[in-house]
Amino acid sequence: MTPRDGIVLLGHGSGGAMSRDLLENVIIPALHEDGAAQQMEDAARLTLPSGQLSFTTDSYVVDPIFFPGGDIGELAVNGTINDLAMSGARPVALSVAFIIEEGLAVDDLRRVARSAGRAAKAAGVAIVCGDTKVVPKGRGDKIYVNTSGVGLARGNVNVSAANARPGDVILVNGTIGDHGVAIMSVREGLAFESPVKSDTAALHTLVDALADAGVELHEMRDPTRGGLATVMVEIAQASGVAIRLDERQAPMDPAVAGACEILGLDPLVVANEGKMIAIVPGADADKALKAMRAHPLGVKAAVIGEVTGPSAKGKVTLTSMVGGERVISMLQGELLPRIC
Amino acid sequence: MTPRDGIVLLGHGSGGAMSRDLLENVIIPALHEDGAAQQMEDAARLTLPSGQLSFTTDSYVVDPIFFPGGDIGELAVNGTINDLAMSGARPVALSVAFIIEEGLAVDDLRRVARSAGRAAKAAGVAIVCGDTKVVPKGRGDKIYVNTSGVGLARGNVNVSAANARPGDVILVNGTIGDHGVAIMSVREGLAFESPVKSDTAALHTLVDALADAGVELHEMRDPTRGGLATVMVEIAQASGVAIRLDERQAPMDPAVAGACEILGLDPLVVANEGKMIAIVPGADADKALKAMRAHPLGVKAAVIGEVTGPSAKGKVTLTSMVGGERVISMLQGELLPRIC
Repeated sequence: MTPRDGIVLLGHGSGGAMSRDLLENVIIPALHEDGAAQQMEDAARLTLPSGQLSFTTDSYVVDPIFFPGGDIGELAVNGTINDLAMSGARPVALSVAFIIEEGLAVDDLRRVARSAGRAAKAAGVAIVCGDTKVVPKGRGDKIYVNTSGVGLARGNVNVSAANARPGDVILVNGTIGDHGVAIMSVREGLAFESPVKSDTAALHTLVDALADAGVELHEMRDPTRGGLATVMVEIAQASGVAIRLDERQAPMDPAVAGACEILGLDPLVVANEGKMIAIVPGADADKALKAMRAHPLGVKAAVIGEVTGPSAKGKVTLTSMVGGERVISMLQGELLPRIC
Repeated sequence: MTPRDGIVLLGHGSGGAMSRDLLENVIIPALHEDGAAQQMEDAARLTLPSGQLSFTTDSYVVDPIFFPGGDIGELAVNGTINDLAMSGARPVALSVAFIIEEGLAVDDLRRVARSAGRAAKAAGVAIVCGDTKVVPKGRGDKIYVNTSGVGLARGNVNVSAANARPGDVILVNGTIGDHGVAIMSVREGLAFESPVKSDTAALHTLVDALADAGVELHEMRDPTRGGLATVMVEIAQASGVAIRLDERQAPMDPAVAGACEILGLDPLVVANEGKMIAIVPGADADKALKAMRAHPLGVKAAVIGEVTGPSAKGKVTLTSMVGGERVISMLQGELLPRIC
């Protein structure tokens, strides 16, 4: 049996002839649909200008692997691009490593790899090395994907969770909660008039837009697992500041708000995959908002809060939809297993 | 429950407070026993001199996760260091990403992370970023580890599977088959007078020794999954050359040879984790052998074959223990699932 039809077998993880067949006839053509010459050695070589390198890794175990608005391949590529972008770096190259459960349809593997390849190409970031392992049935779940990435740090951007200062404002580039609700809706079998789609997207060009506009960036983060609340608490604690958020200013799709009510979820702790928060000096708020809104991924950008003063414990206060105030905390326990 | 006792729960993969607790109280202290200040941002920054970067990734799914001579943490660190080293690069930094099955003992996680941290420290390579995901029971197997690595390419080493030339000789730095037999012995419950231990080791300083001795390196490879035979066939095909190996010259532990007989394994396709083959011009054979033997990981180094001439199909011939000759091929099918 060629791997072109059928399913992935344990032998495809052997490192021998079957592995090579799967790699050469399925994975590489799918990751690189343009047929660009492929490096087949174990390590890729990159020629980079001197400077600071940014290096990150993330594994993706999302269930289901295909969901409204995306799949695990695209998610893994965009997610690691975003980790680089949030660190202030320009993404350069990615690795993609698959852990496949025996029995996965080769068509599904091809679809995931193709989606990863297309996302990388759309983002202008090269997939330069990879790895494939196969585990027996019942020792994995269809496919897990690790992406690691390297990027070039911008000299003039120095972001850190410890850099928020009183007087800063907090911006978000659009609606919150879309990814988590898209995944949960599939799992719970919820039907909406128009299905909620994951917001998975690569945010590096949005960061370019902010940097090019001359915005002084104190911190950038993509609020994925744990959502907006967890990220804000982390930053407040690391910076020793108090943060006040206004939920009424946070853009939200009405379908997401409705689903959160039905599912009993707090949208502030629901995962996003194409959203970023930016913390900038109050004086740069308008400039940052304008730069975000001029970018396709920031049309609905809004200022959602401010850093109000020092706070040893890092207190984060939320003004809710109905105008009440409460202190928010990190996600406790497990809200949404395998959301990314 | 603190994660210090007990087991890993799904909530430890939430991205919220439990994730942070596991990270700060178990994983980071274990990876960095010396208490070096730890970067907690999503992406690490590295200051590198200008030059060519080498970038690689590998996932480890070995079963069992603890085995004679090592464990999955050490294996993952050494394996990725070796991929960088074999590419001719000096390893600089690693990422470590865990996919944990719910229910893993926190003690086992700590042991794996500690072992990874110690291996990295012993090799002089920094673990600079990481990720932790938790999957439900029955969707993983204890722990899977992905390590990615970056290194600095040496300007004067240009190895490739396509670079073997007639007249070259093939060296190996020691006994073959140790890792695969160590794993299989545990799985099959074989008892030896002295147990066969995995040869897991970081080979980058052995490469330093070869480069420092002025050996002209045409190709270097660590014969892991698929073993020596698979690597030799790959090189013969990529270079368009015929290779002749002499099994009688290949160093082998008698216990490994015995176990291969009992288990019906061909030692040439059994995985190694601390072995490398080097392909060098015949004129450099003595210099290379001397450099290897002067290094602790090369005491039993030997010349095991030669490139005899051009061959469009990449023919590899083996002179066996009893003096017979046969053509060898890549590993077919699956010999040893989850060997690394």
